[in-house]
Formats: sequence, structure tokens, C-alpha cells
Amino acid sequence: MKALIYDGEQQLGYREVASAEARENEVLIRVEAVGICGSDMHAYLGHDNRRPAPLILGHEAAGTIVGGAQDGRRVTVNPLVTCQTCPACESGRQNLCKTRQIISMPPREGAFAQYLTMPDRNLVTVPDGVSIAKAALTEPLAVSWHAARLVLNALHPQSEHRALVIGGGAIGLAAALALKAMDFEDVTIIEPNPARRAFLVDTCQQKAVADTNEGFNVVIDAVGYASTRAKASELAEPGGAIAHVGLGEDTGGIDVRRLTLQEITFIGTYTYTDQDFRDTAQAIFDGRLDELDWFETRSLAEGAEAFQDLKSGRVSAPKIILDPWA
Amino acid sequence: MKALIYDGEQQLGYREVASAEARENEVLIRVEAVGICGSDMHAYLGHDNRRPAPLILGHEAAGTIVGGAQDGRRVTVNPLVTCQTCPACESGRQNLCKTRQIISMPPREGAFAQYLTMPDRNLVTVPDGVSIAKAALTEPLAVSWHAARLVLNALHPQSEHRALVIGGGAIGLAAALALKAMDFEDVTIIEPNPARRAFLVDTCQQKAVADTNEGFNVVIDAVGYASTRAKASELAEPGGAIAHVGLGEDTGGIDVRRLTLQEITFIGTYTYTDQDFRDTAQAIFDGRLDELDWFETRSLAEGAEAFQDLKSGRVSAPKIILDPWA
Repeated sequence: MKALIYDGEQQLGYREVASAEARENEVLIRVEAVGICGSDMHAYLGHDNRRPAPLILGHEAAGTIVGGAQDGRRVTVNPLVTCQTCPACESGRQNLCKTRQIISMPPREGAFAQYLTMPDRNLVTVPDGVSIAKAALTEPLAVSWHAARLVLNALHPQSEHRALVIGGGAIGLAAALALKAMDFEDVTIIEPNPARRAFLVDTCQQKAVADTNEGFNVVIDAVGYASTRAKASELAEPGGAIAHVGLGEDTGGIDVRRLTLQEITFIGTYTYTDQDFRDTAQAIFDGRLDELDWFETRSLAEGAEAFQDLKSGRVSAPKIILDPWA
Repeated sequence: MKALIYDGEQQLGYREVASAEARENEVLIRVEAVGICGSDMHAYLGHDNRRPAPLILGHEAAGTIVGGAQDGRRVTVNPLVTCQTCPACESGRQNLCKTRQIISMPPREGAFAQYLTMPDRNLVTVPDGVSIAKAALTEPLAVSWHAARLVLNALHPQSEHRALVIGGGAIGLAAALALKAMDFEDVTIIEPNPARRAFLVDTCQQKAVADTNEGFNVVIDAVGYASTRAKASELAEPGGAIAHVGLGEDTGGIDVRRLTLQEITFIGTYTYTDQDFRDTAQAIFDGRLDELDWFETRSLAEGAEAFQDLKSGRVSAPKIILDPWA
């Protein structure tokens, strides 16, 4: 099969590799759409020692089951493979499973390839009328859905409903959409890149600004740098909550003095539970996350160029989806 | 009246000052017991620019109303004076009132004095049979009660019940007592000072250790330094929660990478709500916070020496209570 291989820092090779085969108790999926995530970019830049070269990256996949009893079933893929038996899994927090695996991290290859093998329980059926490309957005949307759910759970019931999302990439935009799907209407996105900001306003009908000094009782940091955490610390209202998604930088930025004196909660969030993934897929299928027409599609063969364009800030769309069969 | 005046860095003078008088809509209290808090020590060392000299410190007070219709009523004092009308106050989060005042911070003098004036709504009646010195512990116990309540609220319902408290001073010990009063039985306290640790074990019947590398799904940082936050970040179990009380250092120590990847919640906590204060007082009166015999009493005249002894680590009891009439 064709695959896009991460060969080392800023090196991606598109070439023929041995085809994926269904492992025991798993099914083979023909990958028809796979998104590029910020964490793929992080690995591509050589900043993620959990993803050593050579490796197939990519974990935002959708496609069609090939072979066996389910041949032809269109599915979107939850890339977290968990044990289903530990206390975390049994309490519905599969994202905290100590033996969790994610495709694109050893021992599992990723989805920047024509085929992928996955346990059946990780698959959600995509209804007719929903495109496979849109279905491939389930994974990043689920990350934000989970963060939005946690931060709203942490909120005092009598709090004002005003949210700030820092960062207008896919995770930030998805966080705004998730908050709105959860009846949190007043959402502002900070996005410093003018082209991205214009895209958010014009194509996605979001309230996006270059910066703000207003206060918000809900803040989602969808970037994860010291500077964005400093911003979150500054703008969270007394008694408010910050959800932190993603990992640009490992430390720094949190104003502990302000968090303490103003009683602000800072919530680390990681991926999603199985239920979050299913709920997000259903919200997509029901149209509760808007049109989801904010991605651009390229062929997997052009993947290396897509990474270069993303790195240079030349892409205004929040998401590039690669098609391994174009 | 006699008062202990903070005159500048490490300078405390015990002398005669103009007596406090009841302000409009307030009552005059004869202060009979007032505890020394870590924040008083912080101010004494010149580290709190919110408390400029000259100033009467002290905010953990109990005593007896003098004059007026309530003459002779024994009370413990909630030192937070709030507006009662803003959204924070109306939602029961008086600790977040934007115009909150606390005695010992301008414009209000503190309680290291023979008299104090307070609004009636800040007072809780102390029943016969409860000593005024024990009643003066309500304030620090309420700080920890509030932190324990918030961190237990943040906990996933199916979580294991194991808690770590970092720091075995009054706030740390009170946090352990509050957790136990909330049916959280397995509580370990880290206290590096051997004399304090022995006191916690022998006099307070607590599980206190010099250090640990075990994991806990609830951590209360009752110290608030970068090093204790680093410890909290390290030992919090995946999916767990950290409550942060007090402010030794303003920044540093939080391992954001771990908080994010292991989905740990970090809760800034500040003082208590009016309800927390009342609930804590009732728990003291009902004996649900144990014997509370872990303070030593000195006269207010000896206050300067008490601060010196605390600073030098010569005090094994978690709390010194000063008596302005001894």
C-alpha cells in the first residue's frame, strides 16, 4: 500500500510499504480520509519523542471496512485502543487507561496510509449522506467536545455563560462549536493569524478577534504554550474554569497567585472517553456542530507539501484532510 | 486598648492604641483568642504588599460581644466582609466578592488587639461548653473545609478514595480533618519537620510521613511553593484533582505536561463561603473535627516572641493562639 512515512525531522516520504493486515479480533479499514493534527506537526518537527522515525503518523481517520462480515461498512475511527478492563476503563474514562495505545505511536502505525487495522469496538458507523471527510473530523471534534464537557461540569451552576477559546485552529474552532452545541452561546475565539481569523469569521460564522482583555468565566486554551496559559490565567473570571488542551510547551505561564486568590480551576484534558467519541459522532451526524465545511482536501501523495504549508502558516483552513486514494 | 502592631519587616510592637469602636451596623467584640496564621507570618516578613505597616494583623478571632442588645454573646468571627449584593455574593460565593475586605488588611485593622468591630452577620454563636480558643480555630479550619469540599466535588464519582495533604501546619492538618469529616478515610500528610511530624502522629493521631512517592487521587497542597506544587503534580493520580491553598510562591512548579496527559485538575482555592464558615463551626461544635487540642496559647504581649519562634521552626504545635487579656 502507499503510505506517508515520517523519516526524521521535517522528512516525509510517500512510498510503497507492506500493506496493513487485520490483526486478530480486528478489522481492516480502507482509509479514505485522514486529517493532519497539531500533534502530527509536533512529531514532524522532531519534538515528540513518543513518535520516533520511521513511523506512519496520522490518527484522524475514516473509511470503509474491507473484507469479512462487515465488508463495505463506512466508519469513523476512535484511534485510542484501551484495555476495557482496568478501573479507568470500567468507570468510562478510557482516556486514562494505563495501557492505552493510540495509532501513530508505537506499537501502532498511523493512518497516513491506504489501510489500517483496528478493533471493531473503536468504529462508529457513518450514516449515508455524511461524507467520509466530514466523518474524519470526529477525532479532533471529540477532543474539544471532551474539554468543553469537563469545563462546563466544573462551572458553578449560577455562573454567567461567557467563554473564550484561545487559538482558532481545528481544536479551538471545534471547542467553540462544542460549547455552542452544549447551549453555551457567547463564545469568542482569539486567533492572531489574520488569514485564519478571517476564515473563522467569514466561513465559520464565529466571533474571532486578534486579542482581547475582557474577562470570561470559561476559557479553553487550545494551544498550550506558556503565553496562552498566561493569557488564560489573566482573563479567567474569579471562580471560573480553564480547560487546557494540547501541549505546545510543557511548563510555564500559569499565574498560580491569581488562580488561588481568584479561585480559578485549571483542568488538564486529554483526548476523550469512548462515550465522548460516540456523542461527538452523533452530534456531527445530527448537524449540531454546524456545516463542518472548514477543511481542505489534498491527496496523501501531496502530504509532505501540506506539512510544509502548515508550518509556514500558508493555510487558512483549520484542517487539511488527506485522501490516500486521490 | 492593647494591640500588637506590625511596624515593619520583622518588627512587632505591643502597646496601647485607641480602642476599636463599633462602626455603624456593627458590633464591638472583646477578642479573647486570636490565632497566628501563615499569612500573618508572610506579612511580618515583609512579603505581603497588601499589608503595609503600621497595621494590626490577625484574622482568626473569637470573643464576646460587648454592649448593645447582644452583650455577652460568645462568637467566632468570619473575617471576610463582603457586600452581600453582587452576583458572587448572591450565588453564595462570598469569597469571590469583588469588594471583599478581610480584617488585618486596610481599610480594616486586624484582631491582634483587645477589641474588634464586625458586622453582626459575620458572627457565629459559640455554644456553652466550647472554649473560645477552640472557636478561634474556625477560620483556618474553614479554609481547609472549603478546599476539601471543592476537591471532592471535582472528583470523579467512581474514584478511589486516597488523599495526600502536603504540609502539616494548621491548614494541612485541618485539611486532613475536613476530609475525614467528609468520609474520606485514607489521608496521608507530608511534613518534613520531624518535631511537627511527631506532633501530628502522637497528639493528632494522623498518618504523617517525611515524604512519599505513592500516588493519590486527591492532593491538597497546603503550602503553596513551587516545590510543593511540583510534588502535587507528580503524585496526583491520572484523573485526580489537586486543591491549592495558600501562597508561598506566586509561580512555578506545576507540571502542565503531566496535568494535561493525565487529565489532572488543579483548583485554586481562597478562604471559604459564608456557608462553609458556618458548616465548619457546626462541625467543630459537634466534635466532627476531633479534639482540636493541637494549639498552644500565649499572651498577646508575648506575640513578637511567638512570631520569632515560628520563624525559627521552634514550635511543634500547628497553631499558636494569642490571648489579649492574659
